[in-house]
Amino acid sequence: MTTEYDVIVLGAGPTGENLAARTRAAGLSTALVESELVGGECSYWACMPSKALLRPPAALAAARAVAGSREAATGRLDAAAVLARRDSFASHWKDDGQAAWVAGTGAELVRGEGRLDGVRRVLVRTPEGGERVLTARHAVAVCTGSRAVLPAGVPGLAAARPWTSREATSAKAAPDRLLVVGGGVVGVEMATAWQALGSRVTLLVRGGGLLPRLEPFAGELVAAGLRAAGVTVRLGAQVAAVERDGAVVTVRLDDGTELAAEELLYATGRAPRTEGLGLGTVGLRDGDWLAVDDHCAVRGVEGDWLYAAGDVNHRALLTHQGKYQSRIAGAAIAARALGRALDPAPWGPHTATADLAAVPQVIFTEPEVAAVGLSAEEARQAGYRVKVVDYELGRVAGASLAADDYQGRARMVVDLDRQVLLGVTFAGPGVGELLHAATVAVVGQVPIDRLWHAVPAYPTVSEIWLRLLETYRDSE
Amino acid sequence: MTTEYDVIVLGAGPTGENLAARTRAAGLSTALVESELVGGECSYWACMPSKALLRPPAALAAARAVAGSREAATGRLDAAAVLARRDSFASHWKDDGQAAWVAGTGAELVRGEGRLDGVRRVLVRTPEGGERVLTARHAVAVCTGSRAVLPAGVPGLAAARPWTSREATSAKAAPDRLLVVGGGVVGVEMATAWQALGSRVTLLVRGGGLLPRLEPFAGELVAAGLRAAGVTVRLGAQVAAVERDGAVVTVRLDDGTELAAEELLYATGRAPRTEGLGLGTVGLRDGDWLAVDDHCAVRGVEGDWLYAAGDVNHRALLTHQGKYQSRIAGAAIAARALGRALDPAPWGPHTATADLAAVPQVIFTEPEVAAVGLSAEEARQAGYRVKVVDYELGRVAGASLAADDYQGRARMVVDLDRQVLLGVTFAGPGVGELLHAATVAVVGQVPIDRLWHAVPAYPTVSEIWLRLLETYRDSE
Repeated sequence: MTTEYDVIVLGAGPTGENLAARTRAAGLSTALVESELVGGECSYWACMPSKALLRPPAALAAARAVAGSREAATGRLDAAAVLARRDSFASHWKDDGQAAWVAGTGAELVRGEGRLDGVRRVLVRTPEGGERVLTARHAVAVCTGSRAVLPAGVPGLAAARPWTSREATSAKAAPDRLLVVGGGVVGVEMATAWQALGSRVTLLVRGGGLLPRLEPFAGELVAAGLRAAGVTVRLGAQVAAVERDGAVVTVRLDDGTELAAEELLYATGRAPRTEGLGLGTVGLRDGDWLAVDDHCAVRGVEGDWLYAAGDVNHRALLTHQGKYQSRIAGAAIAARALGRALDPAPWGPHTATADLAAVPQVIFTEPEVAAVGLSAEEARQAGYRVKVVDYELGRVAGASLAADDYQGRARMVVDLDRQVLLGVTFAGPGVGELLHAATVAVVGQVPIDRLWHAVPAYPTVSEIWLRLLETYRDSE
Repeated sequence: MTTEYDVIVLGAGPTGENLAARTRAAGLSTALVESELVGGECSYWACMPSKALLRPPAALAAARAVAGSREAATGRLDAAAVLARRDSFASHWKDDGQAAWVAGTGAELVRGEGRLDGVRRVLVRTPEGGERVLTARHAVAVCTGSRAVLPAGVPGLAAARPWTSREATSAKAAPDRLLVVGGGVVGVEMATAWQALGSRVTLLVRGGGLLPRLEPFAGELVAAGLRAAGVTVRLGAQVAAVERDGAVVTVRLDDGTELAAEELLYATGRAPRTEGLGLGTVGLRDGDWLAVDDHCAVRGVEGDWLYAAGDVNHRALLTHQGKYQSRIAGAAIAARALGRALDPAPWGPHTATADLAAVPQVIFTEPEVAAVGLSAEEARQAGYRVKVVDYELGRVAGASLAADDYQGRARMVVDLDRQVLLGVTFAGPGVGELLHAATVAVVGQVPIDRLWHAVPAYPTVSEIWLRLLETYRDSE
């Protein structure tokens, strides 16, 4: 039996769900194919459970950072309550709520493993073992996301059954000792969470610092925060071999050091979920990331019928950016289906300009890190003539009110030729909600002269904006 | 003895300090006259001490709002520690630090009571009882601020020695019972603070709601928060008479109800600090607010030599807005002193456009309120064709992570003709730092189409921006 839709979406994570919602809103019949849980990695094994683990210790730390409330917050974090709350935010790994949401859009949820079978044709292996053939009048969108990968060439690693982000976000109890390998977002967030929940955590990082893609001070402040929380942070640590013996896993480093723990989290890389996707039937290759143009149409495929949005296109591996792409791709698919030309303008409705210029990210460590746009290094490499403006957040009245001995820093990167911001980074307790002002400024290309009229309310931490502008002015 | 300066600034609160710093930076000799503490109301009897009182209970409430940290934060707020921390933030009511900051700008601090004595001429009665004559080559700027006033016509009020904002922010201990009259910012913030610090607070409000100048839902949520904290909130309460008998003050309402307490805070209005200012010598009237043009030059005075910035000009009674005006006025004074024409453009360096279009305000109650620009009602009255977009903050994933059972609301007011935001209001726990994104959007006049590219990081509370945009889109 063949069923025809206007649009077929492979993968019902946040990106696929939102893309289907957009094509449905445009009146296009849409099938949404999912082999696991509707809601995807973000809902069950990433954003939601990880932030549910991180929020209670962060709230407690904030109360303890202030004289007066500190004395009232001397109890122990209730790890069981945190884990139970996490389970609730992960919907107990059931997707009824999300499936109902999809139904509300009018998209048809097709359970099973989908794969391409030539142009605008999808085969779905159903949970019952059957096979359905779906064809798309207009477009197929791949929104299958990414998965954690273990590095090749570490003897004993796979056999040691390490945690990846999935196990680290869904574990039912804190291991006594936890080794974390990887200084990226997953590594630092999960080290923060499990240390707070009672594990003795050691973080092993191959390079010389944490969060290497961000401004260097961000990783330095996070490393200091982890150490202050009791985490052992080892930089320049190269894993030579791993061995599990029953309940204990042992990691041997290049320098011969041996470290033992009950669990080992490997968070060193992601791969596209494109294996077995039938990409060979349309001239591409299974297992590859799907390169796309700014409308999220897959490059190298004739006829503009194949799209890829979210992690799988490797533009920005973040839920919110996938949702952004899903709106762009959904609008582009709808326009083409209706025979309309795409608007090619940057920042237009069919162009994912923010992917290149203004990707925001918040890292929920202690302290938090929030960044958007280009780092100073990235801006210079891109050829901009820049001025880098730094300010210590602790010198802002609002920050000193928020926490005694507040430690943090902000940086803005100014494009000297256009007098607009290329990027902004904050690192400090509670800075996550500061970010969107920077994102609006970068995306809106609001000139420095105009930003002077955007007055931050006193005494909030946001007064950092005034201090950054003053510092820039007085440095000229 | 007469001393001549380029510029004389009357009043060394944040506005006067910053104005003097700007004229000094332009190379103009500047005298800064202050009769009380350098740093002004904000530093000792308003922003700083009030927020120092409010932050510890807010931090504790946030920890108690989350399962896991709630169980660790069951102790009592340490009121003595809060008050000691407040004393520190008020610099123990000593101004050495601020005076040193002024000295660092190169402005000359003149202690004493200044008053005008004709055009560009100021008399200062020194603390020693002497009198100095200061003359200004270019400009005199009045930055004397505002003070609390008690309403006339309430029998017994003055004799009952009520608290005003000064006593409410500097009191050394929590009274057993506190009556607060006034539902504006001072009233709701101080009711919040002293209830948390141990007083039994009753808030008496003449009108039908709190915070009447803001979107109605803000006052409603604050009233609900005060009641949940144990404050008795009485709306429509008209004070008929007040009587103090020793340690107890009794308030009688119009309806005959009598309420007794140890202290009574009256927070029903402000007056300009222009009494005895010699305004009559330049054709104005002591005791009046000083009306100014958009460069902060006082209207009705020939020759553009008299300026007024901060509360005293009645444009926006907020420290940050006074500092904003001080930059505008300082730039205008410097330009004119150097014989340059002023730039009359809105949002230009000499025009305080934000005073009219984008005044931000954060109210540090539980929940917090943060607003910028026009309310829906103000926008309609100003003749805009608007769309009002509301969204419940508790439905945002980041908010539900931040606090269990998060209650709050956001509203944006869209100018349908220009497709930009005229105003945004948030009410909910911890929304203060959300505001600056709205301020940048309003001031930058970033079109709705562009705001879609300003992606909020998931899962932050800032994702409210996506929800507001979606709600607006789907309402069209």
